[in-house]
Amino acid sequence: MTVLLGSVGAAMKFCSNCGQRVSLEVPPGDNRSRYCCASCGAIHYQNPNMVLGTIPAFGERVLLCRRAIEPRYGYWTLPAGFMENDETIAEGAMRETSEETGANVELGELYSVIDVPHVHQVHIFFRARMIDQHLDPGTETLEARLFAESEIPWEQLAFRTVEYTLRRYFEDRRAGVFGTHVAAIRHRTRPGQS
Amino acid sequence: MTVLLGSVGAAMKFCSNCGQRVSLEVPPGDNRSRYCCASCGAIHYQNPNMVLGTIPAFGERVLLCRRAIEPRYGYWTLPAGFMENDETIAEGAMRETSEETGANVELGELYSVIDVPHVHQVHIFFRARMIDQHLDPGTETLEARLFAESEIPWEQLAFRTVEYTLRRYFEDRRAGVFGTHVAAIRHRTRPGQS
Repeated sequence: MTVLLGSVGAAMKFCSNCGQRVSLEVPPGDNRSRYCCASCGAIHYQNPNMVLGTIPAFGERVLLCRRAIEPRYGYWTLPAGFMENDETIAEGAMRETSEETGANVELGELYSVIDVPHVHQVHIFFRARMIDQHLDPGTETLEARLFAESEIPWEQLAFRTVEYTLRRYFEDRRAGVFGTHVAAIRHRTRPGQS
Repeated sequence: MTVLLGSVGAAMKFCSNCGQRVSLEVPPGDNRSRYCCASCGAIHYQNPNMVLGTIPAFGERVLLCRRAIEPRYGYWTLPAGFMENDETIAEGAMRETSEETGANVELGELYSVIDVPHVHQVHIFFRARMIDQHLDPGTETLEARLFAESEIPWEQLAFRTVEYTLRRYFEDRRAGVFGTHVAAIRHRTRPGQS
């Protein structure tokens, strides 16, 4: 599903319950500003979102997708996308993998949980085993293909959470032990970086 | 922070961008119903929320809180609450522990990640070590106290994610190895259960 990362945490102008203007205020008993409606009394909380994906492996190679959507059009990523209501994290990771690559995968263990606080997201990746080499990329993917470790386009990866996950994955594979990795990726402050 | 679980996924009536009426529709290129605004074109996505907490241990005992708020007023829980924007999952788990118990804890490893799809939540618990026995419960907690395994009020626990986490925790402690546990808790359909 297409969702612009930049749209997360957008400013709220009107109350979604009654349609009147809202204002940013600290509600009684709270210690943070929330969008509050003086007309109907509603308090609108905004919370981080989860992005779910997999590291699909076929033998020694892993599957990457080249993005057909912004942000990061044309860059390579692991299959991943926003978690939907009514699904589990495992179901969401499988759904995104299927939608973006068409691959037949068997889900493995939870692999990485990476905070990206400046965009209000947590990225979660599972290991996954491709059952065959069938691929049928969806409309959000320009192409999907398998890469050996030596072929990974490190400079052309879409997101730092993908780079983090792939680097740990190959390290763990060499060590012969896959752990569960928790990390945080902070906003880059140096000029020229995003 | 006080948030009613029942308020998650509330129906949207008006566009938060322009204040006009919204309707539930499947946007072009999507396969799920979203709240869409015909007036300004905004699509409003609703996604699951994360609840973050800890299992604070002091020696052989773990710290539970008796809830001073609904839902489950008067029942026992591990300290936990909704993740806020601009924080990491570790920071959120520490913040909730501090707000609800006042305990001085050192955060440990990620312990459990539990889907609760029927309320659009994922509950995440970390292990934690209490540095001393200092407690200073906040306004959402009637009392906080340490329990040995044999003293845990299993029938008076507020949430099944708390029960799941505590049962695994004591099993793992007996086995001498703490893993990371991923699980899903589904809606109960038998009469008389909630």
